[in-house]
Amino acid sequence: MSKPAIGFVGLGAMGFGMATHLVSQGYAVHGFDVFPASVQRFQTAGGIPAASLQESAEGKSFYVCMVASAPQVQSVLFADDGIVQHLPQNATLLLCSTVAASYAQSVAAELQTRGRSDIHFIDCPVSGGAKRAADGTLSIMAGGSDEALQSGRDLLQTLSAESKLYLVPGGVGAGSNMKMVHQILAAIHILGASEAQGLAAHLGLEARDTASRIMSSEAWTWMHENRFPRMVDEDWNPGASALTIILKDVGIITSQARQHNFPTPLCSTAEQTYLAALLHGYRPKDDSAMVRQYYASPIADVQATGQPQTTESLQLVLDLMLGINLVAAAEAVSLARYLNVDMAQFYRLVSDAAGASKVFVGRGLEMIEGKIGAQAPGGSQTVDEAIGRLENVVQKARDLYVPLHLANAALNMLLVAKRAGFGGEASTSVIRAYGYEG
Amino acid sequence: MSKPAIGFVGLGAMGFGMATHLVSQGYAVHGFDVFPASVQRFQTAGGIPAASLQESAEGKSFYVCMVASAPQVQSVLFADDGIVQHLPQNATLLLCSTVAASYAQSVAAELQTRGRSDIHFIDCPVSGGAKRAADGTLSIMAGGSDEALQSGRDLLQTLSAESKLYLVPGGVGAGSNMKMVHQILAAIHILGASEAQGLAAHLGLEARDTASRIMSSEAWTWMHENRFPRMVDEDWNPGASALTIILKDVGIITSQARQHNFPTPLCSTAEQTYLAALLHGYRPKDDSAMVRQYYASPIADVQATGQPQTTESLQLVLDLMLGINLVAAAEAVSLARYLNVDMAQFYRLVSDAAGASKVFVGRGLEMIEGKIGAQAPGGSQTVDEAIGRLENVVQKARDLYVPLHLANAALNMLLVAKRAGFGGEASTSVIRAYGYEG
Repeated sequence: MSKPAIGFVGLGAMGFGMATHLVSQGYAVHGFDVFPASVQRFQTAGGIPAASLQESAEGKSFYVCMVASAPQVQSVLFADDGIVQHLPQNATLLLCSTVAASYAQSVAAELQTRGRSDIHFIDCPVSGGAKRAADGTLSIMAGGSDEALQSGRDLLQTLSAESKLYLVPGGVGAGSNMKMVHQILAAIHILGASEAQGLAAHLGLEARDTASRIMSSEAWTWMHENRFPRMVDEDWNPGASALTIILKDVGIITSQARQHNFPTPLCSTAEQTYLAALLHGYRPKDDSAMVRQYYASPIADVQATGQPQTTESLQLVLDLMLGINLVAAAEAVSLARYLNVDMAQFYRLVSDAAGASKVFVGRGLEMIEGKIGAQAPGGSQTVDEAIGRLENVVQKARDLYVPLHLANAALNMLLVAKRAGFGGEASTSVIRAYGYEG
Repeated sequence: MSKPAIGFVGLGAMGFGMATHLVSQGYAVHGFDVFPASVQRFQTAGGIPAASLQESAEGKSFYVCMVASAPQVQSVLFADDGIVQHLPQNATLLLCSTVAASYAQSVAAELQTRGRSDIHFIDCPVSGGAKRAADGTLSIMAGGSDEALQSGRDLLQTLSAESKLYLVPGGVGAGSNMKMVHQILAAIHILGASEAQGLAAHLGLEARDTASRIMSSEAWTWMHENRFPRMVDEDWNPGASALTIILKDVGIITSQARQHNFPTPLCSTAEQTYLAALLHGYRPKDDSAMVRQYYASPIADVQATGQPQTTESLQLVLDLMLGINLVAAAEAVSLARYLNVDMAQFYRLVSDAAGASKVFVGRGLEMIEGKIGAQAPGGSQTVDEAIGRLENVVQKARDLYVPLHLANAALNMLLVAKRAGFGGEASTSVIRAYGYEG
């Protein structure tokens, strides 16, 4: 059976990988981008160049939209000579951009208003980074009508790993909601990687050795593993994951959370720290460049001192990450629960996607199930123990004049939980400070 | 009656003002500083130069120590040929440096250990800035034995305004504790002034006009009024209030709070923001230079646009400050209560010192008395109203890519309070999120 022709808009880092993967799987992909150089690069990689949105959409019964933001989506879909105007009857439209759930729902409503409810519209943001996009092993969170999901399923499956296509119950908006709660962890862990490596540098720890010890410990995060190579090589201009992209994603989280009057002390602290970096000229850089907001020169230049306190210093870095990752998990789980996200699917998705951390896999499960973690890797800890470790790190960093934005926010949330009388086990204590009742 | 000779160490911005004021009041002041230029300047101003600590202390029955930090105090008092070694029997020693209460107590203990319990030791930090130091109108918080306070009272009164000498019950350490809880407000308001004026600049509001409107509004803080002239003139090098000094004071607060497992989300966010500025080269500058962490060029260059949205923009700036000042008051009141500080004295002191804000005068009283504020200036507001206003500001700033570190932390604390079910009136709601039970 021959594969259908596909229209594609948005050939940036992620979109280029997705589109060329489809090409490699035998699809005829007609790609458009506002940057002609991106279209040309796509053509060199075997794609079919489209000279306009119209050309990319006309006659294509499947269309993938992977532009960067809701305003761009609005423009490419609905402007004069936009995509929707030119899609054939009963086309399937995949919106893979990360947008607010309310925006995805507004697209569905606008299709209806414009008399194009024949279009099978799927709200299906992705996660996994440029490499997995190119490999066709993304995590995808897809929401839409049963009919639309049925129609788009083969294409979605081609873009995602076998086990990583999540059909999210709840229709259009549900995919974006799931992506949003996932991104809480992604946004915090991206900055957490810089905070940890920045502290490590101030402590005189060699960067690569520190990273490899983090990677083999309970402090592991997917983001640390993914971002560290670019961080240590200062491969930032432009870099594979623009600071402006995670900042946009965080903006979706915090603005939605504010609309629900839901606190996001860690995620919003990450946002403020990203915003502060813009003022220092980091707008065009990779998000792993945030390490320079913690350490003023290249971390690769730090020479291991081999001093006896190395083990102790490394433990500080691990404690920092364990504390941040714990409260990050509480923040994501509590907001997901508040938004009535399917918690089993959420847990499965995050554990196997870019928001993953070992702490989430273990403690996140405790939080979701309200169980104290006999099965959790690393066992359990009391809130007093968690507080004690973070207090020690924050104080030591302070003595070295190192800011620890996330660790400080995490510590305050643990202290608020303790002051509220939520004692006992750390994970089930701190999540209650978010108003979580399990 | 002739006035006694006084030894004095620490002729920095504050110490110089204090020492020269004593000279103007007819005291023979023998001043020493590690910087010979400071001693020379003091001599030019009518002081008696001391060539060493020994020379400053020998035969002086009154001694004022105004060096910058606990390690400096330890060194000048107890090093070989230090002050204590040379003070005469029954001398009165005023420690005016801002230090942790536990450190002040350790000085008393060490005097005892060294067989110098004859010395009348007073723990008496000051507040009010260089100008009030020179005018002899400082606020002073003095703790010590009744005998010591009796002995030092005239001297303390000479340095302070008639109504601003606070004899703090509780002995040595009580003065420093009172200063510490006062400094919570000072530390937050210093950064708050920069945050507000930085946002104003991004909104296209003329700096001086904005400041004067803040000054005549409920958003007034003593710090805004005090710091704004240096901020707008960029009079920062070195400036009258070094960033490193408030950073030291904040470090005392947050390290003490951590020892008590007490959350300080605003004050510690201020600390992290100050620390981040050090990485960008702000270590030698005045603390009003923090405005550059919010706006990248001189705020004096912003030209008023005269656009219709000016009133709305100005309201955003006022709402920002009102929200920060409210949570700052809650943070200070709750920690003061937790430390068993005399709340009536605390309220009276703060209301008339550098930590003052109109919000504290009104809402702080509500918090302390647990009353809903019929008598409070500006009336009362619900926690939902306070949240709504701050959410609006943070979102608008976000749309302009302006970080609002303090407003974000304040908003999260209000949201935590709301999630915990502490509804109703804003000031009595948010303070309960600190575990305050009134």
